[in-house]
Amino acid sequence: MTTVGILGGGQLARMLALSGAPLGLRFLVLDSAADACAGQFAPMVVGDYTDQAALDEFASKIDVATFDFENVPAESAHWLAERRPVFPSPRALAVAQDRLAEKTLFRELDIPVPDFAAIDTRAALDQAIATIGTPCILKTRRLGYDGKGQFRIKTPADADAAWAALGPQADKVGLILEGFVRFERELSVVAVRGRDGEFRAWPITENWHVDGVLSASLAPARTDEALAATAISYARKLAEALDYVGVFALELFCRDGVLLANELAPRVHNSGHWTIEGSETSQFQNHLRAVLGLPLGDTRMLGVTCMLNWIGAMPDAGPVLSEAGGHWHDYGKSSREGRKVGHATLRADSAGELAQALQRVGERLGRQEQVAPVIERLA
Amino acid sequence: MTTVGILGGGQLARMLALSGAPLGLRFLVLDSAADACAGQFAPMVVGDYTDQAALDEFASKIDVATFDFENVPAESAHWLAERRPVFPSPRALAVAQDRLAEKTLFRELDIPVPDFAAIDTRAALDQAIATIGTPCILKTRRLGYDGKGQFRIKTPADADAAWAALGPQADKVGLILEGFVRFERELSVVAVRGRDGEFRAWPITENWHVDGVLSASLAPARTDEALAATAISYARKLAEALDYVGVFALELFCRDGVLLANELAPRVHNSGHWTIEGSETSQFQNHLRAVLGLPLGDTRMLGVTCMLNWIGAMPDAGPVLSEAGGHWHDYGKSSREGRKVGHATLRADSAGELAQALQRVGERLGRQEQVAPVIERLA
Ligand SMILES: Nc1ncnc2c1ncn2[C@@H]1O[C@H](COP(=O)(O)OP(=O)(O)OP(=O)(O)O)[C@@H](O)[C@H]1O
Ligand SMILES: Nc1ncnc2c1ncn2[C@@H]1O[C@H](COP(=O)(O)OP(=O)(O)OP(=O)(O)O)[C@@H](O)[C@H]1O
Repeated sequence: MTTVGILGGGQLARMLALSGAPLGLRFLVLDSAADACAGQFAPMVVGDYTDQAALDEFASKIDVATFDFENVPAESAHWLAERRPVFPSPRALAVAQDRLAEKTLFRELDIPVPDFAAIDTRAALDQAIATIGTPCILKTRRLGYDGKGQFRIKTPADADAAWAALGPQADKVGLILEGFVRFERELSVVAVRGRDGEFRAWPITENWHVDGVLSASLAPARTDEALAATAISYARKLAEALDYVGVFALELFCRDGVLLANELAPRVHNSGHWTIEGSETSQFQNHLRAVLGLPLGDTRMLGVTCMLNWIGAMPDAGPVLSEAGGHWHDYGKSSREGRKVGHATLRADSAGELAQALQRVGERLGRQEQVAPVIERLA
Repeated sequence: MTTVGILGGGQLARMLALSGAPLGLRFLVLDSAADACAGQFAPMVVGDYTDQAALDEFASKIDVATFDFENVPAESAHWLAERRPVFPSPRALAVAQDRLAEKTLFRELDIPVPDFAAIDTRAALDQAIATIGTPCILKTRRLGYDGKGQFRIKTPADADAAWAALGPQADKVGLILEGFVRFERELSVVAVRGRDGEFRAWPITENWHVDGVLSASLAPARTDEALAATAISYARKLAEALDYVGVFALELFCRDGVLLANELAPRVHNSGHWTIEGSETSQFQNHLRAVLGLPLGDTRMLGVTCMLNWIGAMPDAGPVLSEAGGHWHDYGKSSREGRKVGHATLRADSAGELAQALQRVGERLGRQEQVAPVIERLA
């Protein structure tokens, strides 16, 4: 009997536990919130990631550890890795936690990136704005998620406001200035690498964000094969450079047909949720297979899928459940503004059928805006 | 937040909970064994089905109840149904619990059945053997499962041995004598009926038993469409007659191209496990959708599938996980002779590919006998 420890008890941990159960695994979740939604289906240790008593108990009850939350403090990850196998490794986690380290690695590996510069002081900000040009984005290097910890600079005159917003965090989490990319598309590669180095990627996904939060994903992305192959080759280079084990996502911008790497998410990823119904093997099960050294599952698609994120509160399930290819995912969370509370996946055999299903669901839920860009892309 | 209570905490309850989680449901399992395998993923009330304190606690914490185990005592089901909605209804359950009531209903509905007779006494047994002829099978009317509580009578001279084996149970569970059917195939219809009467069936399945226990299932069964349609029409008639709500299986023998009904299983069924990966909607999720009055999901297949049961102990997972369409289901049980501890599902796009995958898995696991009849059928 193998027990997998998961640091963090959100929807990713929940879906990991649900998809790992058929492998005969047990799970233990560490989270500071006693009502973390993964706790509805897996036992928990309630405590902070830096709570030594909680970490001790957690470590003593598990065989291997992995992450639901990528911003677990490096020291906790290292402490755990001295006691139990931890995948991905604390080193891979550390790189992915820091936008500067990440982008520096992308560049070293010849993976194109937007212009960027580390920002330590107010003066450095002015200088970097002058070099990179506007528009640009000031971001915290660490602890950002769902577009939080970002400030858009339209003209050099915005520098004051940007510094007022994020400058106070410069010492603690570091800052980075990035050129604003006028992208045509956002794409992601969701991929998995095994303990033995085997690498597999799912077909690439196109993503739409609203206010910095993922709103919809379409898989396979409707791009030419060469672009998809390039994207996957970047993911592979990265995984090999980091000796990465498990599932990860590489987020990319596509501008004038050229890919620019945005970030590496060292975990199962929201843009891979469609794999539950849309692929022979889901990202959740393949993450666990990788972490446990089991053979990786097939990543091919079954049809065409669109994932719609539910933010804040769950809509009525009826319209989605009434669709032949409609699948519902309620994370069992209470409603809260901006919170990811669930998603739906629509699966179809053809792009045309998927567009029709999206149209019906969008209308019945009054969410035409959310489905519109996906329908447009499918046309 | 809706909590579904499940009477019985075996693998069916476990898979119900895992597939119902995405609907945002919570589960509570009632089982007398504290280590029941569903308890690894759902909270439990530990107690017997007739333990009033356990039933009280169970009823007080749930919104609706359903079954993992069909032989819950009728009084407990009735007691619960007075307090909470229970699906399927205690009436449907009562019919399915009694081979005599079941076969009588089949006959009333013009669903062909093997010859049968109720047996109350030793004399009645002799008389029934004379009428029905040999070979025949003496079975307990109630509480039989996986071929337990059965005695095969080859010649009238076996009547003594049969009575010695099962006669002592005649008063408690009742006995029935059935003509032995020299079937070419065993088939099952797994179907679902909603609270609103909507009926859907999955493509019919062919099943192979070893020592009375399901060993392998193939879906879709390779039969002509007229036979499949007849089988499904029987399932529909039955469901309507019983005002059935939820998933059930109708087991059928096929002899000389004619269908004879064997039994009705008033729950998700082992011969429907392939629906997890092989259908747009699994039997588990559709059972819950039915029980909750949600729209039923699409029952169409994705390719061709074979389910292999693991009895007694789990084999090595490697050969199955190495197959592109290989899916593993370890129920988290300890090994024990004759116990259903897990299953595997192999999915493929064509019969030929499925046969090849079965061949490889059979060889690598040294289970050529288990896969042979399925491969033969696929040829
Ligand atoms: N340099 C950029 N140019 C243009 N748009 C950007 C840039 N950086 C971020 N964005 C936009 O903001 C979104 C969120 O940014 P980013 O991925 O950096 O944030 P995050 O907080 O890590 O979010 P998540 O973890 O959800 O991906 C991006 O998907 C993109 O839509
Ligand atoms: N009348 C019969 N003629 C021929 N074979 C039979 C007959 N009854 C039962 N069998 C064989 O025994 C198997 C198990 O019988 P049955 O379905 O009645 O038992 P059970 O204990 O209810 O099993 P389960 O619940 O697993 O289906 C059947 O699938 C079939 O292979």
